Amino acid sequence: MKIAILGGTGLVGTEMISILSERKFAIDELVIFASSRSEGKKINTPYGEVVCKVAKTSDDFNGCDYVIIDVDDPIAAELAPLAAQAGARVIDKSATFRMDTNVPLVIPEINAADIVNAKRGIVSTPNCTTTVLLMAIAPLDAQFELDRMVVSSYQSVSGAGKAGLDELQTQWKQHAFDDDLNGFVSSHENESLLAGGSVWNKAIAGNVIPLAGSIKQDGYTSEEIKLCKESQKILHNDDLRITATCVRVPVFVGHAMTVNASFKKDITALQAKEILQNTNGVYIDVADIEGTYPTPLEIAGADDIHVGRLRNDLTQPNTINFWVTGDNLRKGAALNAAQILEEWVQL
Amino acid sequence: MKIAILGGTGLVGTEMISILSERKFAIDELVIFASSRSEGKKINTPYGEVVCKVAKTSDDFNGCDYVIIDVDDPIAAELAPLAAQAGARVIDKSATFRMDTNVPLVIPEINAADIVNAKRGIVSTPNCTTTVLLMAIAPLDAQFELDRMVVSSYQSVSGAGKAGLDELQTQWKQHAFDDDLNGFVSSHENESLLAGGSVWNKAIAGNVIPLAGSIKQDGYTSEEIKLCKESQKILHNDDLRITATCVRVPVFVGHAMTVNASFKKDITALQAKEILQNTNGVYIDVADIEGTYPTPLEIAGADDIHVGRLRNDLTQPNTINFWVTGDNLRKGAALNAAQILEEWVQL
Repeated sequence: MKIAILGGTGLVGTEMISILSERKFAIDELVIFASSRSEGKKINTPYGEVVCKVAKTSDDFNGCDYVIIDVDDPIAAELAPLAAQAGARVIDKSATFRMDTNVPLVIPEINAADIVNAKRGIVSTPNCTTTVLLMAIAPLDAQFELDRMVVSSYQSVSGAGKAGLDELQTQWKQHAFDDDLNGFVSSHENESLLAGGSVWNKAIAGNVIPLAGSIKQDGYTSEEIKLCKESQKILHNDDLRITATCVRVPVFVGHAMTVNASFKKDITALQAKEILQNTNGVYIDVADIEGTYPTPLEIAGADDIHVGRLRNDLTQPNTINFWVTGDNLRKGAALNAAQILEEWVQL
Repeated sequence: MKIAILGGTGLVGTEMISILSERKFAIDELVIFASSRSEGKKINTPYGEVVCKVAKTSDDFNGCDYVIIDVDDPIAAELAPLAAQAGARVIDKSATFRMDTNVPLVIPEINAADIVNAKRGIVSTPNCTTTVLLMAIAPLDAQFELDRMVVSSYQSVSGAGKAGLDELQTQWKQHAFDDDLNGFVSSHENESLLAGGSVWNKAIAGNVIPLAGSIKQDGYTSEEIKLCKESQKILHNDDLRITATCVRVPVFVGHAMTVNASFKKDITALQAKEILQNTNGVYIDVADIEGTYPTPLEIAGADDIHVGRLRNDLTQPNTINFWVTGDNLRKGAALNAAQILEEWVQL
């Protein structure tokens, strides 16, 4: 079993290697492809020391059984087909092929059966926000037929990779000893506090930014559109109505969402809770339907998606409100790719 | 004009005195009441040095024209009627009397006319979240008849007073030099990062907490119930349907919300924008209906409520999405009280 990780020095790539090892996935040869900046760099992995290479042609992927890709969209667009051409099965974490009708978009707990339709030799994994949301909503959709959702996100900075982590950390340190809180109380005049960085134009420390990705269409951002379109594809329902506002928050790891979900069939919060209690990969407190409130800081590093604040929406029938949070680097990215790999090797 | 501030040493009380002075409100005598802990303490104010007193009986309020109250609910419940009994007009920022049918609940831009119905001599100001939301939604309701709203909040720690500010600042400092971000990346196992404080059981720095107030009924929190009930009262519409999830975020000052609002009459985002552009106390960028995204850090210390990300909800008719943010200490509390005072003195 020869596996290549393209983007193996990045945040998700590193998590990927560590998750494969945690799950005791047997690998005879691990290849790490990275940018030319990292070429020749030696990486210590649970599978031994690996020297970073740069992939340029189809030949570079010769002999690879699987190539797992976590790089920017344009690079994935170029290299994923070359890897597939070399005979590798490709698991792509970029957004490039997600909406391609010949590329399955897969969360194994929900639609592992779609993997067989990988006509281009590529399976895509969803956006991290989509995955966290669908883990909680898919089992309810299966039973009660989801009709419409209003979603607001609380997304961590690691959704923007290592640069996002660094930007929050830098601003956090910079203002840690602003002993006089008056600067924050009247921050609209405080240029130092308001200064953005290379990832976000506005400060993220001590702030929330209601713009994830970039504005694309009808005022919606790339992130909001992904959440809608990817959910429709994974749930095999183009009529599914989803409206979302995606917001970045000063959390390092762990995405969260408030969800107001309406169903076509009769549903109560209690029924929803019973289903989620019996869903693999989802954790909901059995003791208390109302009072539990998992936070991203508590779940960063864990595999399960956590659901809390599950309750009936009192303003219309067959509608529930809940809160969901999950690790965007693990189930939101690397863990989901590892699970696709585990399914695919059996086919 | 003799004015007493009950709770004048607190976060909102201090803001109150500064706003009265900014607005050049003429005061002959300023009285500051505080807890026995602050008794005798000298406070420098724009109206001269004031020595803190403790209020216990109706007599303590003798001669006061107005008493502005910003203390915890039980103390307000006890002292507001005593102040009114002494002949003062009382403006109460606590939650105690907000739903009392003989006490008007007022945002002057929206329902200043209700002040004349202060049968108990008390006018209440709404919860800070309610005020920020209604400043944006009331002018749209007036024209298009609001039917239902799904609201998710991003509330700053100063909503919990000075203790909230201190708790975030303490945790912020404590973890500022955790140079190894692995602690945050796998924080579910990190007891130091997860430790809460005296205000919140869970850490607020580097986290978001989907519980503001305490769980009261049907799984909803005191804060979520206030948002619904107070909005109904201020907009004079008991049939108004509002469902909310209130979330605390690591921002010092400035509350924000995502709002999905459905109306009975035909509405478009463009029409909504035109109305909000002409609404006193609301700022919306004229240049770009889609791309503006005001953040709490940018508006803390400012008077206007800022609206952005205004767009049509593509999933159902006559529904819009928007983002709203405002200073919870100013328009959310002290400024609104000052404006009530300015209206009331004319009656």
